[in-house]
Amino acid sequence: MAQTTTGRVLSIQSHVAFGYVGGKAAVLPLQCLGYDVDVVNSVNFSNHSGYGRFGGSRATAEELSKIFELMDQNGFLSSERLLTAGYIPGAEALSAVKDLAVKLRQKNADLIYLLDPVLGDSGRLYVAPDTIPVYRDALRYATIITPNWFEVEVLTDVRILDLASLRRALQVLHEQYNVPNVVISSIPLRPWLADALPVLMRPHASSNDLDFLVCISSSRGNEGAQRAVHARCIPCLPGYFSGVGDLFSALVLGHFKPAHAPPQDRTETPLSYAASQALSKTHAMLTLTHEHALTLPEEDRLPTDEELDVREPERKIRRMRGRELRLVQGQGIIRGEETNEYRQMLPWTTFWDA
Amino acid sequence: MAQTTTGRVLSIQSHVAFGYVGGKAAVLPLQCLGYDVDVVNSVNFSNHSGYGRFGGSRATAEELSKIFELMDQNGFLSSERLLTAGYIPGAEALSAVKDLAVKLRQKNADLIYLLDPVLGDSGRLYVAPDTIPVYRDALRYATIITPNWFEVEVLTDVRILDLASLRRALQVLHEQYNVPNVVISSIPLRPWLADALPVLMRPHASSNDLDFLVCISSSRGNEGAQRAVHARCIPCLPGYFSGVGDLFSALVLGHFKPAHAPPQDRTETPLSYAASQALSKTHAMLTLTHEHALTLPEEDRLPTDEELDVREPERKIRRMRGRELRLVQGQGIIRGEETNEYRQMLPWTTFWDA
Repeated sequence: MAQTTTGRVLSIQSHVAFGYVGGKAAVLPLQCLGYDVDVVNSVNFSNHSGYGRFGGSRATAEELSKIFELMDQNGFLSSERLLTAGYIPGAEALSAVKDLAVKLRQKNADLIYLLDPVLGDSGRLYVAPDTIPVYRDALRYATIITPNWFEVEVLTDVRILDLASLRRALQVLHEQYNVPNVVISSIPLRPWLADALPVLMRPHASSNDLDFLVCISSSRGNEGAQRAVHARCIPCLPGYFSGVGDLFSALVLGHFKPAHAPPQDRTETPLSYAASQALSKTHAMLTLTHEHALTLPEEDRLPTDEELDVREPERKIRRMRGRELRLVQGQGIIRGEETNEYRQMLPWTTFWDA
Repeated sequence: MAQTTTGRVLSIQSHVAFGYVGGKAAVLPLQCLGYDVDVVNSVNFSNHSGYGRFGGSRATAEELSKIFELMDQNGFLSSERLLTAGYIPGAEALSAVKDLAVKLRQKNADLIYLLDPVLGDSGRLYVAPDTIPVYRDALRYATIITPNWFEVEVLTDVRILDLASLRRALQVLHEQYNVPNVVISSIPLRPWLADALPVLMRPHASSNDLDFLVCISSSRGNEGAQRAVHARCIPCLPGYFSGVGDLFSALVLGHFKPAHAPPQDRTETPLSYAASQALSKTHAMLTLTHEHALTLPEEDRLPTDEELDVREPERKIRRMRGRELRLVQGQGIIRGEETNEYRQMLPWTTFWDA
């Protein structure tokens, strides 16, 4: 009668009362996939910072460590999966989270730890520079990481300007930091990347007027796993949505099943399968959200205009509010009940050929 | 394709990292019913206090007020429903929550506010006595309250010993405190109550060896609503489960639809319908949880023994852990996909006949 237990995830993320970012974008999807989720809140905010006006309390390193210690004493640190993502306030709190990851990894060599190193986007750092070494340190304990291209650059000190530098950056992550699985969720499809991609993966010529992002997954390939890079282009939806990375990471973790039989399609790996599911469902959720935003009154969907936004903050608040993820309405997408296009990542077999 | 929006709930409750009480027992069910839920955490604890070993941080009145103020400034205090339940730490924090309820009620006369006055159980007060007047004060702003029998006694200063005192207590709530809708979730079926219940509602003679609880709903009956008392006996499941009241209250709120057409069955009221749904789904969830607990290894389901528990705290922790609500596994119950027995509350038409 009831759903069977898929497993248990310990999720450490930011919490906002209103809206869907951090834990609010990750916990419900994991629950819909059948996971019991233990939830530690790194902050308790009114809403995400993108609204301009926001606030609340931040958990200190001591508070986080105390909660982890109590959970440990009670025997509650037994989840098979760990998710740390979103905003964790400051290097000390982040270190407390890293120490927990080390402990869980020591307890359980098979721990599946997805680390989303939230550092910034599009060339802008969100976090204090002293958190970067802590993230670099934490990489060694991760099973999967889901940085954006800018975060890859920050973590590896490699600027991604061409295929060679992309290869070098992935190599640094796999070899220097020992990360088995990397998913770079969204690299803008610049000409160098379009040229480098296998022809089969490039957008159709008819879609020349659209912007595209590329999702790339890469498994290091030892300890029984095969070395493999997969990729897929996805069209950009117009405008900015919050919490997308948090949703995507949760779905990658939720769909990653290394112990299962290999996927039916022999070109898939456990990582490419998880990334494909996450990509498909995230894109469907964004489409649902975008379509909803289009139905709102005009004053709730005025286009992004930073100058006007500064003069009239309500303008931005209303726009962002209308673009909050439609997670609750899209539960069927997460549970796989909707017939969405399955965006399968395709093998990029020549990737490592220098 | 996607579920339509049922509405928006602002939920103010305690948060635990591990397990299902407070917000962890209420938010997922409301989301499964289609509500967007804004979640303010009154505390951030490792687990509930019943485990013996627990801790974390409590939100101060100032922190709560600050979050409410920011949400107000951003235009986020627009939910049609308010849920305040579970543990709110201390009279000052509770007052901050009450002030918010007053503000929301002023903004929206149609606000549906479910207040679960968590004060204690079975004759024992959980909270500091100075919170009682704050709860009494808050009653005036509530649409529905869901106390247990002991909380009714504390709020009304009436000891419930017979039908006359039960009537008196409900009268105090409806008239003195102006509460339109009261659901007393579980009154032990003592002989006086069994005798007072209409014959149709009493347990079958064949179930003499079971313990029963009675759920009673009572609507004041003015402003267009009819005065009505409904009741239903439910068999007790053995042992103690945590978070049951929090789940029940969330389901009552989620299923309360006063603006809709009257339910098909003309003996139902919006309140009795909501309470019937909540009772049915809560009982099904408890049954699922109980059945799961029976499958656990013996050391995870040792019977309650307070003396042994004191000597060996792990014993209690393991038992309680095995009895955490199976909410994630029972999502189908909440969404109404399982064919559970619908436990309809029946009209107790003679209740007010002195």
